[in-house]
Amino acid sequence: MPLYLRQSRADHSLFHSLRLSKTRRINIDKREKKFYSTNLMITSRDRDDILISTVIRLIKRRATSNLQNVVSKSHAADIAHWFPYLRPNEKSILFGLLIEQGQMGEVMSELNSEDRNLIVHEFDAAILAEVFHTMPADDLGDILADLPEEKSRQLLKLIKGKASEHVEQLLQFEERTAGYIMTPNFLALTEETTAAAATARIRELVDIEMVFYVYVVDRENQLKGVISLRQLVATKPDTPLRDLMTTRVFSVHPNTPQEEVAHVVARYNLLAVPVIDDTVKLIGIVTIDDVIDVIREENTEDMLKMAGTGDVNIASKSIFKNTRARLPWLLASFVGGLVAVYVIGVFEVQLDRLAALAAFIPIVIGMGGNIGTQSSTIVVRGLATGEIDPKGAWKVLWREVATGVALGCVYGILLGAFAKLRFSKVEIDGLEFAWRFPVVVAIAICVNMLIAAAIGALIPMFFKRLQVDPAIATGPFVTTSIDVFGILTYFTVARFLLF
Amino acid sequence: MPLYLRQSRADHSLFHSLRLSKTRRINIDKREKKFYSTNLMITSRDRDDILISTVIRLIKRRATSNLQNVVSKSHAADIAHWFPYLRPNEKSILFGLLIEQGQMGEVMSELNSEDRNLIVHEFDAAILAEVFHTMPADDLGDILADLPEEKSRQLLKLIKGKASEHVEQLLQFEERTAGYIMTPNFLALTEETTAAAATARIRELVDIEMVFYVYVVDRENQLKGVISLRQLVATKPDTPLRDLMTTRVFSVHPNTPQEEVAHVVARYNLLAVPVIDDTVKLIGIVTIDDVIDVIREENTEDMLKMAGTGDVNIASKSIFKNTRARLPWLLASFVGGLVAVYVIGVFEVQLDRLAALAAFIPIVIGMGGNIGTQSSTIVVRGLATGEIDPKGAWKVLWREVATGVALGCVYGILLGAFAKLRFSKVEIDGLEFAWRFPVVVAIAICVNMLIAAAIGALIPMFFKRLQVDPAIATGPFVTTSIDVFGILTYFTVARFLLF
Repeated sequence: MPLYLRQSRADHSLFHSLRLSKTRRINIDKREKKFYSTNLMITSRDRDDILISTVIRLIKRRATSNLQNVVSKSHAADIAHWFPYLRPNEKSILFGLLIEQGQMGEVMSELNSEDRNLIVHEFDAAILAEVFHTMPADDLGDILADLPEEKSRQLLKLIKGKASEHVEQLLQFEERTAGYIMTPNFLALTEETTAAAATARIRELVDIEMVFYVYVVDRENQLKGVISLRQLVATKPDTPLRDLMTTRVFSVHPNTPQEEVAHVVARYNLLAVPVIDDTVKLIGIVTIDDVIDVIREENTEDMLKMAGTGDVNIASKSIFKNTRARLPWLLASFVGGLVAVYVIGVFEVQLDRLAALAAFIPIVIGMGGNIGTQSSTIVVRGLATGEIDPKGAWKVLWREVATGVALGCVYGILLGAFAKLRFSKVEIDGLEFAWRFPVVVAIAICVNMLIAAAIGALIPMFFKRLQVDPAIATGPFVTTSIDVFGILTYFTVARFLLF
Repeated sequence: MPLYLRQSRADHSLFHSLRLSKTRRINIDKREKKFYSTNLMITSRDRDDILISTVIRLIKRRATSNLQNVVSKSHAADIAHWFPYLRPNEKSILFGLLIEQGQMGEVMSELNSEDRNLIVHEFDAAILAEVFHTMPADDLGDILADLPEEKSRQLLKLIKGKASEHVEQLLQFEERTAGYIMTPNFLALTEETTAAAATARIRELVDIEMVFYVYVVDRENQLKGVISLRQLVATKPDTPLRDLMTTRVFSVHPNTPQEEVAHVVARYNLLAVPVIDDTVKLIGIVTIDDVIDVIREENTEDMLKMAGTGDVNIASKSIFKNTRARLPWLLASFVGGLVAVYVIGVFEVQLDRLAALAAFIPIVIGMGGNIGTQSSTIVVRGLATGEIDPKGAWKVLWREVATGVALGCVYGILLGAFAKLRFSKVEIDGLEFAWRFPVVVAIAICVNMLIAAAIGALIPMFFKRLQVDPAIATGPFVTTSIDVFGILTYFTVARFLLF
C-alpha cells in the first residue's frame, strides 16, 4: 500500500501507543533502559508482547470499548502481527471490530495468508467488498489469487470501478512475477510538464504509491524517463520535465521473476523500478517495501527447499497439507536408505564375523552427512549471494575437498583413538587384531568426509548449471547420496584391511 | 553511499552499457526476447555474463583503453560484481585502472570483504587514503573495522577531516548494531525553518544520504520530528517545519542490533530510521538500502548456522579458516556418533544373532534425520518471520508430532513391505520368523519419525525461550540427538519383538 500513507499512520500510531497506559508505558521505558545498557535483543518485539497480552485480556473480558481504543491507536502492521497469537474465536472478534472501525483494509494488507483466508471465509461478499475497496490493488490481487476461481470473480464484480480493473490487470500475470507484485498506482506526466506543474500535481495526489519518483511518458504512455522527487525540488519551477529527466531507466518486464526484480532494486539501490511491457508502455512500478517482502519470501523458500519441505508458508498449513508437502521429499532419503540396506547386505559376511563393524555405521555416515550439509549450504548460499562464481566449480570443489581432508584427518585420528580404547582387541575367526580395526574406522571417516564435502559442493553447482534452483537439489538428495557412499567406503576399507 | 547519487550513476551506466558494442547489444536483445517470451530467469545476470567475459578478455589482451572505456561506462555495483570471477592478477590490473579513473571509492563500497582486503593489502596508505576520501562513512567504517588496529588508525590519520571524524564515531559502536551501520550524513533543520528554506537547503546539498526525509532538531540537536520530502513539496512555502513535522518518529538506539533495525524499517515500511542516543540526540540514520543488505546478511547467517558453519562470508575464506570454522560444529555429531557406538554396543548380542538388523540402521536414522531437519527448519524460519508464536510451543509440537505419525505410518508400511520381500524369513537361533522382522522395522521407522519430528520442533522453540538464536541450535544438534534416539528405539523394538 502507499508508503507515505503507511508512514503517516505509523507515526500516528506510535504517538498513541506511547500513551497507551501509564503502567505499560513505564514497563516499556524500564525495559528500554535495560536494553540500552545491556544491548539484548528486545524493544519492539518486547512492546509487541505487552500489547498482545493486553489485547487478549481485553478480548476475553469483552471490554469492547477499551479494545476499540487500543486498536484505533495501533499501527496496521502491529495489529496484523497480533493474529498468530490469537485463538480462532478471538480472531473473529477482532476482525469484527476492525471492520466496524474501517481499519480492516489496512490490516488485511499486512496479514499472513492463513488469517486472510480465515476472514474471507467468515464474512459475506458484501462486507468483504467494502473492505477490499480500501485496499491497494497489489495486495488485493494477492488475496483474490488464493481464492477459488468463482469466488474471486464474484468479489471482483462487487468491488467494481478502477480498483477491480487494476486487480484484473494484475491477475493476468503469473504469481511471483513483476506484473503480479507491481502496483498500477504511480505518477506519470508528459515531457512538457514543468517542475512547478509536477509539484502541483503531487499536492493533489492522495493514494499514489512511492511519490519518490515522477515518471515521464509520451502520449502512447511509453516510458521516456524518470525524475527523483529530490531532483524536482532542486530545480527552477519553470523547467520542463524533458530537461530534468534521466532518459535511461532500470526497468523490468511484467514476466520478470520477482527474485530478479528484487535483484535489480537491491543491486542498484533503487526505491522503485518501473514495469514496462513489450510495447515499452509503463504499466506499473514495484516499490522497495514489496521488494523487501520478496527477499524474505525467497530466503524462506530456499531454506525450506534445502530442508525438503517445498512450501513457503508451510508453518501455517494443516497437518494433512503439511504431510502431503513433506512426503515426496522424504522419498529421496527412503530410497537411499533401501539402497543402503542392499549395500550392507553385500557385506553380510563381514558383519557376521565382526558385529563391531555395525556400531560405527552411524558415526561414519553421520559425520559425512554433516560435512556434506555444510558444503552444500555454503555453495547454495554463495551462489545466491553471488559470492561464488557458478563457473568456478573447480575452485570451489578444490577448497571443499581440501577442507574435507583436513577435517577428515582430525576426526579420523580421534575416532581411531576412540576405537582403539573401546575395542582394544577385535577377534575375527580366532585371529586377534590390535590395530587394524581402529585404522579401518579412521581411514573410513577421513575418506568419507572427503567424498561428502565434494558431493555437497558439486550437486548444487551441477543443478545451477542446469538452470535448476540449487536449493531444491540440496537437502535430502545430498544427505542420502552421502549415506550410501559412506557405507560403501566404510565396508570396502574394512573388507580390504580386515578380511 | 548516497542513494540518489547511486541512482544517477546507475541510469548513466545503463545508458552506456546499452551502447557498449553493437554485437553484444544484439545478443542482449535476442536473449531479452527469449526471456520475455519464455519467462526464464535471465536478463541482468545474463548481461553480467556477457560483460564479465568481455572484461576478462580485455584484461588478458592488455587492451587498456578499451577496458577504461567499458569501466568508465559501467555502474559501480556491476564492476564490483565482476571481481569474484577474476584471477588475483586480473583483479590487481582492474584495481589499478579504477584508481586511475577515480572510480575505486564507489566500487569499494560494493565489494565483498575478500576483495576489499585484497586491495587494502596491495596499495600503500597514501593511495588508499585518496580512495577512502571518496567513500561514505558507513562503508568506510566497515572496511577499517576489518583491518588490524594500527593499520586502520594509520589510515584514519591520512584521511583526516570530517570524514575520519565520522568514521571514528561509527567505530565506537559494536559491529551489527544501528550505530555501526548508520550514516552520519543526513539533513537536520530547526523547527523555525520554513518549507521554502528547507527546499533551498536541499538544493545546495550534494552528498547527503536519503534526502527523502528532513529531520527537525532543536539547538541541542535533539530530534523533534520528521517531514517526508513529499510533505515538504506539498505545502505552502512559508510554513515553518514545526507545523509540518510528525512529532513522533520510529527511532532506534545506537546499540539496537541490526536485525532489530531491519525489523522496524521493514514492518513499518520506512525508507530510513533515525538513530538517537540516550540524550535523544540525533546522531545518524540507517537507510533502507543498508537494511536490505542486513536482511540478506542475517538470512545467510541463519542458513549457515543451521548447517553448522558459524561464519557469514565463509564462502570467501581460506581453507584453513574454513576448516577452523567448521571443526567445532562437527564435534556435536562426532560425540553423538560415539554415543551411538555405545548404544549399539549394548545390543551387540542381538546383532551377533541377527546381522540383518545392521542393514536397516542407516534408513531408520536417515528418515528420522530428514524429518527432524524439516521440522526444525520450519520452526526456525517460522519463528524468524513471526509466523510461529514462540509461546505456542504446544500447538507447534502437536502439529509436528501428528505429521510425524502420518509420515511415519506411510514409510513404516513401505519399509515393512520391503523388509518382508528382502528377508522373506529371518532365522534367529534356529527359529524362523516370517513376519516379526518386517513388523520391527515398520514400528521402528514410525516411532522414530514421530520422535524426530518432535525433537526437531522442540529444540528451536526451547532455544528461543532461552533467548538463544534458534538457528545456532538447530543443525548438528538436532540430527545427532535424533540419530541416538533412532538407534535406541530401533534396537529396543527389535529386542522386544524378536528376542
